Amino acid sequence: MPHPKPKGRINETTLRVRYAETDAMGIVHHSRYIPWFEVGRVNFLREIGLPYKQIEEMGFLFVITELGARYHNPARFDDAVIIRTWLEKVHSRGMRLDYQIIDEAGETLVTGFTKLICTNRQGQPTRLPADLVRLLTNES
Amino acid sequence: MPHPKPKGRINETTLRVRYAETDAMGIVHHSRYIPWFEVGRVNFLREIGLPYKQIEEMGFLFVITELGARYHNPARFDDAVIIRTWLEKVHSRGMRLDYQIIDEAGETLVTGFTKLICTNRQGQPTRLPADLVRLLTNES
Amino acid sequence: MPHPKPKGRINETTLRVRYAETDAMGIVHHSRYIPWFEVGRVNFLREIGLPYKQIEEMGFLFVITELGARYHNPARFDDAVIIRTWLEKVHSRGMRLDYQIIDEAGETLVTGFTKLICTNRQGQPTRLPADLVRLLTNES
Amino acid sequence: MPHPKPKGRINETTLRVRYAETDAMGIVHHSRYIPWFEVGRVNFLREIGLPYKQIEEMGFLFVITELGARYHNPARFDDAVIIRTWLEKVHSRGMRLDYQIIDEAGETLVTGFTKLICTNRQGQPTRLPADLVRLLTNES
Repeated sequence: MPHPKPKGRINETTLRVRYAETDAMGIVHHSRYIPWFEVGRVNFLREIGLPYKQIEEMGFLFVITELGARYHNPARFDDAVIIRTWLEKVHSRGMRLDYQIIDEAGETLVTGFTKLICTNRQGQPTRLPADLVRLLTNES
Repeated sequence: MPHPKPKGRINETTLRVRYAETDAMGIVHHSRYIPWFEVGRVNFLREIGLPYKQIEEMGFLFVITELGARYHNPARFDDAVIIRTWLEKVHSRGMRLDYQIIDEAGETLVTGFTKLICTNRQGQPTRLPADLVRLLTNES
Repeated sequence: MPHPKPKGRINETTLRVRYAETDAMGIVHHSRYIPWFEVGRVNFLREIGLPYKQIEEMGFLFVITELGARYHNPARFDDAVIIRTWLEKVHSRGMRLDYQIIDEAGETLVTGFTKLICTNRQGQPTRLPADLVRLLTNES
Repeated sequence: MPHPKPKGRINETTLRVRYAETDAMGIVHHSRYIPWFEVGRVNFLREIGLPYKQIEEMGFLFVITELGARYHNPARFDDAVIIRTWLEKVHSRGMRLDYQIIDEAGETLVTGFTKLICTNRQGQPTRLPADLVRLLTNES
């Protein structure tokens, strides 16, 4: 996994670490950052103008095919963290989004990426909705 | 919530505490016992002969309407815990299941209950499947 | 569980439902509202002036002893929900907080309560920090 | 991420998919496989003779530094899945474990890896416990 380098439009979403997201080591459990990537992804799509909820209503689903994460520094309970999300690559049937989670001081906590493909409701891979491709192309 | 008292058939399911289920207090997070109740519920139904998966395939859904839990002693990472599940009450459109989670020494960790109603796929309350009522009646 | 009736200072926290919080029924899994209660609790304490993080740093822990929830209407992916949190009761070594989760139209989704006791780092029940009692007394 | 190829001792852990692990797509949420990797890791260590709980009691912590996962086929509620875990690489201060999650028919659902480093209780990187290195060396 090449280290993510922010580019194009970057969505920034701030959230506060929940107690339920910590583990017995006193830090955020490594699996708990993955839903934060998803929060970033959903807000990125909302920001460019096509909320994921709307994409689902149009009959498309986004299925994650690959995931990577590097853990640089831990987040802790009640920390405010910022999820930075941007489009790394788009192709006809899918895309890769990259993430950088930073703390309030700007220090990098976690970086990562997800690759996803677009399917119809029957689970068959299909082209990304044309509206989305247009919006993504404007942003990158 | 009256304290659960085991009766009738009791399903016993053993599971081991996952690290991901602990929190920064070094114990299992209180919300994490709730999916264990569900594991007990699913295994109770399997044991009496009608797996929940099959109930869903028949077009029924079980929707939780009320939940209660009392926390007596904490579970910790890697503990083996036993979930004891039994039917407290059944009525035409729903039922109440009760739970007792104990450790290997038999000490009570958590007790609780869930009330659920049966709906069809459109979310409308409906009678419990007749097969299930028959099986439950035999057990209680 | 008597139905919660809001009183005194009410903290309102808005959050958006994450995809990871839904289940195969297409709605938020019933266990997933419990960490939201916790988010409300943490923000209630912050709002009255004594963040839970600070309470922990002072050497106190809050341990949940009882939990109740009633499910009225389901939340769904991407819904904005409001968690309303207030103090129901405070006593020397613990308190009960009540919760009402509503949607943007004001409809009640879930109500509930948690009872907690205060312990020291060794897990022994102890009096609530005096500063907290003073702040809570002003609010109720 | 090179595709994991099982080698040396392989721990096989079977678990059944919980309803709480599914999402609104009707399949297991992609973040939910990550705690399963951890379950495999914990059981791998137990099987070779040094449970992770004991490692923690000796004053060592394992901190995840990198994670990768590829999603081949989805798991669904109530499926029995097998987590296959093996040591890919060990070095003085850490190791990489690889995972393959298969269904009962032997079909691959998810593959992945985690890299971890060993720290002391103060969070400083340190050598793996000598006992562990000896046990790992025998296995690989």
